[in-house]
Amino acid sequence: MNTSINGDMLIGQAAVHGSAASFRSMDPASGREIEPAFGSGGVADVERACTLAQQAFDGYRESGLEQRAQFLEQIAQNIIDVGPALIERAMLETGLPQARLEGERGRTVGQLRLFAKVVRDGRWIDATLDAALPNRTPPRADLRLRKIGLGPVAVFGASNFPLAFSVAGGDTASALAAGCPVVVKAHSAHPGTSELVGKAVQAAVASCGLPEGVFSLLFGDGRTVGQALVGHPAIKAVGFTGSRQGGMALAQAAWQRDEPIPVYAEMSSINPVFLLADALAQRAEEIATGFVDSLTLGAGQFCTNPGLVMAQEGPALDKFCAVAANALQAKSASTMLTPGIHSAFNAGVERLTAAPGVQLLARGQSGGSASGCQAALFKTDARTFLANPALEEENFGASALVISCRTAAEFKQIAEHLGGQLTATLFLTENDRDTARKLLPTLERKVGRILANGYPTGVEVSHAMVHGGPFPATSDSRSTSVGAAAIDRFLRPVCYQDMPAYLLPTALQDANPLGLWRVRDGEQVRS
Amino acid sequence: MNTSINGDMLIGQAAVHGSAASFRSMDPASGREIEPAFGSGGVADVERACTLAQQAFDGYRESGLEQRAQFLEQIAQNIIDVGPALIERAMLETGLPQARLEGERGRTVGQLRLFAKVVRDGRWIDATLDAALPNRTPPRADLRLRKIGLGPVAVFGASNFPLAFSVAGGDTASALAAGCPVVVKAHSAHPGTSELVGKAVQAAVASCGLPEGVFSLLFGDGRTVGQALVGHPAIKAVGFTGSRQGGMALAQAAWQRDEPIPVYAEMSSINPVFLLADALAQRAEEIATGFVDSLTLGAGQFCTNPGLVMAQEGPALDKFCAVAANALQAKSASTMLTPGIHSAFNAGVERLTAAPGVQLLARGQSGGSASGCQAALFKTDARTFLANPALEEENFGASALVISCRTAAEFKQIAEHLGGQLTATLFLTENDRDTARKLLPTLERKVGRILANGYPTGVEVSHAMVHGGPFPATSDSRSTSVGAAAIDRFLRPVCYQDMPAYLLPTALQDANPLGLWRVRDGEQVRS
Repeated sequence: MNTSINGDMLIGQAAVHGSAASFRSMDPASGREIEPAFGSGGVADVERACTLAQQAFDGYRESGLEQRAQFLEQIAQNIIDVGPALIERAMLETGLPQARLEGERGRTVGQLRLFAKVVRDGRWIDATLDAALPNRTPPRADLRLRKIGLGPVAVFGASNFPLAFSVAGGDTASALAAGCPVVVKAHSAHPGTSELVGKAVQAAVASCGLPEGVFSLLFGDGRTVGQALVGHPAIKAVGFTGSRQGGMALAQAAWQRDEPIPVYAEMSSINPVFLLADALAQRAEEIATGFVDSLTLGAGQFCTNPGLVMAQEGPALDKFCAVAANALQAKSASTMLTPGIHSAFNAGVERLTAAPGVQLLARGQSGGSASGCQAALFKTDARTFLANPALEEENFGASALVISCRTAAEFKQIAEHLGGQLTATLFLTENDRDTARKLLPTLERKVGRILANGYPTGVEVSHAMVHGGPFPATSDSRSTSVGAAAIDRFLRPVCYQDMPAYLLPTALQDANPLGLWRVRDGEQVRS
Repeated sequence: MNTSINGDMLIGQAAVHGSAASFRSMDPASGREIEPAFGSGGVADVERACTLAQQAFDGYRESGLEQRAQFLEQIAQNIIDVGPALIERAMLETGLPQARLEGERGRTVGQLRLFAKVVRDGRWIDATLDAALPNRTPPRADLRLRKIGLGPVAVFGASNFPLAFSVAGGDTASALAAGCPVVVKAHSAHPGTSELVGKAVQAAVASCGLPEGVFSLLFGDGRTVGQALVGHPAIKAVGFTGSRQGGMALAQAAWQRDEPIPVYAEMSSINPVFLLADALAQRAEEIATGFVDSLTLGAGQFCTNPGLVMAQEGPALDKFCAVAANALQAKSASTMLTPGIHSAFNAGVERLTAAPGVQLLARGQSGGSASGCQAALFKTDARTFLANPALEEENFGASALVISCRTAAEFKQIAEHLGGQLTATLFLTENDRDTARKLLPTLERKVGRILANGYPTGVEVSHAMVHGGPFPATSDSRSTSVGAAAIDRFLRPVCYQDMPAYLLPTALQDANPLGLWRVRDGEQVRS
């Protein structure tokens, strides 16, 4: 694999140096800029990438399942083949440690390989056949449904996962799996990492013999390149992971288009954790230690970082707080992804420190690097929390708020009060089952994933995962951005009525040549 | 069943006479008002209905599959039990003939019964289980996914199907099947029909022992009651069938909410028909006759009415036009649904008559009733059509435009030029297969249902039906508003991680007590 970084965008098979503003990425540990310079793209680059994507769509979406699966596997292999250069560049650009980035690379290629399996399996096609009933009054036509890709998808890379939620991350993998060409707007914090991964995808497009417009990678800021991309008529859906402000700006732009399009923005979540009475009484110390580990992992820069803890007041909660405070104080400051994220985190900690009725329990260690995250743990009571909406805002980084409740009924009151969340967690024993049962319906309405006796950081890439949830966790709760079901976001159904065999798509032919699970007259069959 | 019409809204189990503006429906055939007076609701009524719906949601969505299926079947039975009073009232309010309304009633109850089957089958739950892998590094948790209802759904009744797309129509049936309470805003053109059907639903809620908030029926105009309904925080999705202007007003309101929600608006479509060369040469007369029957059916007041016909110029097309013109001239004027629809249709016909380069081929017979639809057939050429966007606007009613093309390549050019459509139709023989193959990818991108050698009016309610399509046919192309798959519109996934058995929903329990088809570790199984 090509490991040179030239500061170029990738538009189809071409390398294009953007002629708008030049920029460099920054090493957040030292605050120093990193070579080379990258050229931001302009509207003409967006136009070129989108036109190529549009031209590629009809051919790409009819690529065979095996060819498309091999393409995804080839991307995975090419990313591996970039070798240590990718990890080194990502470390430099993000301040994330080597082991974490190697793990993230594993997750990224695992994700691509999972979608290869999903493509081969073909259940996403939803092939559905209703036989003609010529003797019925009125006669029923022969009806066959399959799903096809929506069209070219715009993907916005996230800052906090430079591999797994970026150029060849979950949005890209699931859109490509669905048969949709992808135009990525790289996150400006890790352009070198983006270029390396982009070249891996670009090379796979070529070696698999696919139309070049299947993939392009653009640099530039959200206001020009991002908005132009979302506004381009060829783009039929948007995937985004980032801030609520950024996500909603794209969503509103997408919904104001002449042709509104779906936006899958994964935005903000404070991931409430409920410590039910018996679990807390029995395991306060163990839960507190695990919680602080989860809170401070990767400087807390996870969408699923546990930012809110609820428990009933009393000695067990006091113990939890004391142990957590101690553990937190021992945590060294990990480098945050960018100076901007670092200063926003500090501002959030200051706001909480100054908030009436909120007590600072502990800070982690400071220093280490220019953008070191000094973790913070706060405490308040349910009434103060419910009265102050600012306390519900996500502070991206290792900051959490413990809420002492007078009764278990306040758990439900707080849960009802909260906006949509990616996750909610229950620590419980069988003795807590009545409290849990009362809480569960509210959590089901509010969150995408409900955990028992675990920590929400760590999002498995599998079939049953849901990384999503009601607004403002995402802009569209009907789906997930992680796991096999993410492919459904980029599909739409088409029905063929009385279509002659010579025009029917393979997936819908009588003989079922792809060996798909299909629904025939309402029954699931594979014959 | 109760067959009295009192002009009341139904809010939960209560009958409430709206205290805002009073209105009566009108017999479109005579132009006379019909008794009794209906009271429009206000914001307080919306609040009451939505609060009840919210309160009902958690209980209703966990109703057993069998109970929910029986509820849908009970609604169907209650509608039948209203008897002739329902058909008589609908005839009076809509001007539609008895046979059509009896057929539509059959379709409406058939739809409810289909969704009862869909509910029992349980595939909509998408139950997905990934086993824990405790020995993997890192260990994988036990993950289980199911789908649940989005929450209370606002449904807006359509004018043109007073039963099948109205109070207990497809949107209501699919939302109730998904476990979502429904608040209907009745169409003001058939309030008496709405009240009768509403009472049938209300009685089923009571006799099935469901929470009263599962169903409410409101009267009022779109600007006050409609907007208040879409803006209410308890409402989590919207179903609508009607005009593009009306649908987009609701969609924009829904997307501007503090919490944006999905809107399924089925809006406008001109349903292009392509007459490929050999089919036209062989069957011009037969196709022309069938086409005019489809065009004038129900005064053309169908979303799938074929409003655009493309064919290559030449003697076969001349013959088609002559036969179609003759057939059209013999068609008597059916009464349109409302005086407003009738005058909008006439205005549309006048616009087309006056459009440069457009030739009037024929008009149907006039008269018959105050709102009689005098069908109209126009002709133009591809260049004129492509140059004038106004020619692409839907004229709701029996009006169609024939476009003569110089080459088959112009078919594709026109197809690319068109906005999204509910349907497209190909008349073809095997000798036309090359032309059809070139056209098909464009049609797949543009429409929800592609027909061969048939007419798009008549939308089967089955598993493989797609009544949807890209904008502006609908506001959301990812689904269908007719057929079994319509249930998917009102669902979202929830994942349970390491959840103890005593908290797991029945659908996800190890023993599979519901006997569902589930996905276990990526494989479709039923054990």
